[in-house]
Amino acid sequence: MNRVFRGVLSILGLSILGMFCVLTVNPALSEGRADGVSEEMRAIAIRLRDTVLKSDLSYRLDEQLTTEVGPRLVGTPGDRKGVEWAVAKMKELGFDRVWTEEVTHVMWERGEIEAEIIAPYPQKLVAIALGGSVGTPEAGLKAEIVHFPSYAALQAAAPGSLEGKIAFISYRMERRIDGSGYGPAVVARTKGASEAARKGALALLIRSIGTDDNRLGHTGSVKYDADAGKIPAAALSNPDADILMAQLSRGKPVVVRLRQTSERHDQTVIKTANVIGEVTGRETPEDFVVLGAHLDSWDVGTGAVDDGIGVGITLAAARHILDLPERPKRSIRVVLFAAEEVGLVGAKQYLERHRNELDHHVIGAEWDFGVGRIYDMRPGVGPEALNTIRAMAGILAPLGVSLNPDNTAKGQSDLSVLGEAGMPAVNFSPDGSLYFDYHHTENDTLDKVDREAMKINTAIYTVFAYIAAESGVNFRK
Amino acid sequence: MNRVFRGVLSILGLSILGMFCVLTVNPALSEGRADGVSEEMRAIAIRLRDTVLKSDLSYRLDEQLTTEVGPRLVGTPGDRKGVEWAVAKMKELGFDRVWTEEVTHVMWERGEIEAEIIAPYPQKLVAIALGGSVGTPEAGLKAEIVHFPSYAALQAAAPGSLEGKIAFISYRMERRIDGSGYGPAVVARTKGASEAARKGALALLIRSIGTDDNRLGHTGSVKYDADAGKIPAAALSNPDADILMAQLSRGKPVVVRLRQTSERHDQTVIKTANVIGEVTGRETPEDFVVLGAHLDSWDVGTGAVDDGIGVGITLAAARHILDLPERPKRSIRVVLFAAEEVGLVGAKQYLERHRNELDHHVIGAEWDFGVGRIYDMRPGVGPEALNTIRAMAGILAPLGVSLNPDNTAKGQSDLSVLGEAGMPAVNFSPDGSLYFDYHHTENDTLDKVDREAMKINTAIYTVFAYIAAESGVNFRK
Repeated sequence: MNRVFRGVLSILGLSILGMFCVLTVNPALSEGRADGVSEEMRAIAIRLRDTVLKSDLSYRLDEQLTTEVGPRLVGTPGDRKGVEWAVAKMKELGFDRVWTEEVTHVMWERGEIEAEIIAPYPQKLVAIALGGSVGTPEAGLKAEIVHFPSYAALQAAAPGSLEGKIAFISYRMERRIDGSGYGPAVVARTKGASEAARKGALALLIRSIGTDDNRLGHTGSVKYDADAGKIPAAALSNPDADILMAQLSRGKPVVVRLRQTSERHDQTVIKTANVIGEVTGRETPEDFVVLGAHLDSWDVGTGAVDDGIGVGITLAAARHILDLPERPKRSIRVVLFAAEEVGLVGAKQYLERHRNELDHHVIGAEWDFGVGRIYDMRPGVGPEALNTIRAMAGILAPLGVSLNPDNTAKGQSDLSVLGEAGMPAVNFSPDGSLYFDYHHTENDTLDKVDREAMKINTAIYTVFAYIAAESGVNFRK
Repeated sequence: MNRVFRGVLSILGLSILGMFCVLTVNPALSEGRADGVSEEMRAIAIRLRDTVLKSDLSYRLDEQLTTEVGPRLVGTPGDRKGVEWAVAKMKELGFDRVWTEEVTHVMWERGEIEAEIIAPYPQKLVAIALGGSVGTPEAGLKAEIVHFPSYAALQAAAPGSLEGKIAFISYRMERRIDGSGYGPAVVARTKGASEAARKGALALLIRSIGTDDNRLGHTGSVKYDADAGKIPAAALSNPDADILMAQLSRGKPVVVRLRQTSERHDQTVIKTANVIGEVTGRETPEDFVVLGAHLDSWDVGTGAVDDGIGVGITLAAARHILDLPERPKRSIRVVLFAAEEVGLVGAKQYLERHRNELDHHVIGAEWDFGVGRIYDMRPGVGPEALNTIRAMAGILAPLGVSLNPDNTAKGQSDLSVLGEAGMPAVNFSPDGSLYFDYHHTENDTLDKVDREAMKINTAIYTVFAYIAAESGVNFRK
């Protein structure tokens, strides 16, 4: 007991010491609060929150993007129109500065796909080419299926054992609120093709990385290793993977025909752009809070969810702050990244361009995680800024947001590139239970967007951006 | 009050009189019960019910049909394979007699379809040809959309007002437990094309008759009137109808390109067959209880729901009765109808062939309504048989089945053809809330089948068939 009592005393002592240090070193905290959030700021933030909760601006922006532009695969006309739309929209919304920064990538074409079981019981299969996949020979290929329940099982296959075969990974993604079923599943999509090629396979089929039961395949990028041949890779819809499994269960050889006209044009450089808009700070405009989302999408849906929601939320959050009587102390920079889907390409090129001014990116948050309501916020900030995060969390708590005690966030999606490079971040986590029903499918359309959730999430990003920009706190570790 | 009391007395009197009549005129009721259901029969029915509840035979039959045959559109190889499969399966299940009866129809080919918005904002649309639709010119057609919120609104359009246009009906089907949202919606599909043609339209687009939000169109038959030109007709998926509506909301002319290679071959007669299996009755084998389902399906899904479930339930119910120590008094006839989807063609030809022996069809029940659990049974029988129906209902009540007091059932789906001709029937109604999510789409696959509901529903059909065949009651009105 005595030891415990001494422990409590020493924690109290450290806390008082810590608070004293904060009070003395951070001028933004001179108003007597240990969180850099004055009563006036807090009142403004609460009014802002409640105003945004009544606005469907973020939804309307998503509706406009997906109606007037539609799918935005990097290198397609939709991608170019998306950039034009975003520049015009930022100007229309009254951003103080709007500009684009060129991003380059290589060309890939989806082409067409046909898949069917030839034997023992002929049936058509719904399949979708994985992003970046090569095609089959023009006439297609026919080969026997070798089934693996997981990527690990494919890894364990003997060298050469897949000569002349099609490898099929049937692993099914689990539905979880935090989307954590994605990681164990997606390895089949990213690494399966090269692993199958190393064993001699002609092609890879996977069960779609998705939690739905619709006959719509889930696309997404394949990554070819340099040491393996490039083989065609495609995903079957969940019901079609079930059909294939049912035929495999008969114990007879199952032969599939696959014809896929996808094409990589690795020498054809295409140009797109990150689109950037700034709310210019009134005191230290050279320092800015980053709100991130990605403007590109896959080609199959309209990208209303992935990431039209993020585009709508970040643009609307900035607009609501532009509506305040005065600009916050720091700037707010909305970055609509290019070419996220094909490997965070826009974010990586942004980092290269801005590496020298990384310290001016005071903190960032991205939205790129579907349709649900935010239930968790996890900071990744220096200890002196934690009280500011707690003040933010206090304002957001009535919206159902819990402050995660783990202070390890490094940014989500595009902003993970900046987070890894040292930018502080807050990761907001929405309920992801439904996200992988739509993810990377034709079903990614506006009707999936939850308008009420979008109001709440926009309010959360708006409060985050306002407090981070106005408080002047140093979020660095 | 006095009048009420006299009314009650007279009802009581009539009831006693009615019971006396039943007891004297129906020899099957000589065991002293007014329902023709002896204690022994009741005990057998309860044992049968509880045995079937533990069996997944009906599900396994559906699995086999959809895995080993797949889609079964009339006139396709799948349809022929379905007939072969059903004959072989009935024999394997031990039916006493198995035969086919030829059914003829005309040929239709779905072909391919492409639909896209050309202006104001180009986007691809997911569409599906309606069954029986003619195609567009080979190069497709481009025309401005004229929007109608309902079929009635199209009817109200001025003659000639659609010259050179595409009519679009955006009416959205409502989700209801009894599927009653279907009727008000489906008129756009069946009658819309002829109505639009009469106003001069080049083509008809409708919002899919379905309750889901997937980018999979719902097909189903179009009916061309003799007095109207045949124009191409297709359904947009619900999200695509939303995309079109969003563009229409901008107030600019919306132009759509439609190319559809569907073809009617009205002179090409194709042959298929109703497949019939009999459990031969031990006393009056010439009288039979009919269990109906349809063997054909649309071509887009595997027809696991529509009507693989019905095939599984009816075959399994007969098989469970075959497992009894002795055959019931009357026969049980399972009829797997051909060509239901294209207009109850197999049922109509069955009626023509069997019109002279219609009286031997003592009562019938069909399953053709999706995946849910039965919650309601509605008889359509003579008054003397109502007590037998009540006895049946008593055995089924623990499974959640309510006896509908309305005694007007005339058979469902195929059996409505025999019901209208005078065959008594029981209509079992399952929860239809989910059915129109899958109905006539690619999504009609085995994973949608609720295995537990299928056990319960099979138990219900088995008890129905057993009691109806064993009791010997006259169900006629």
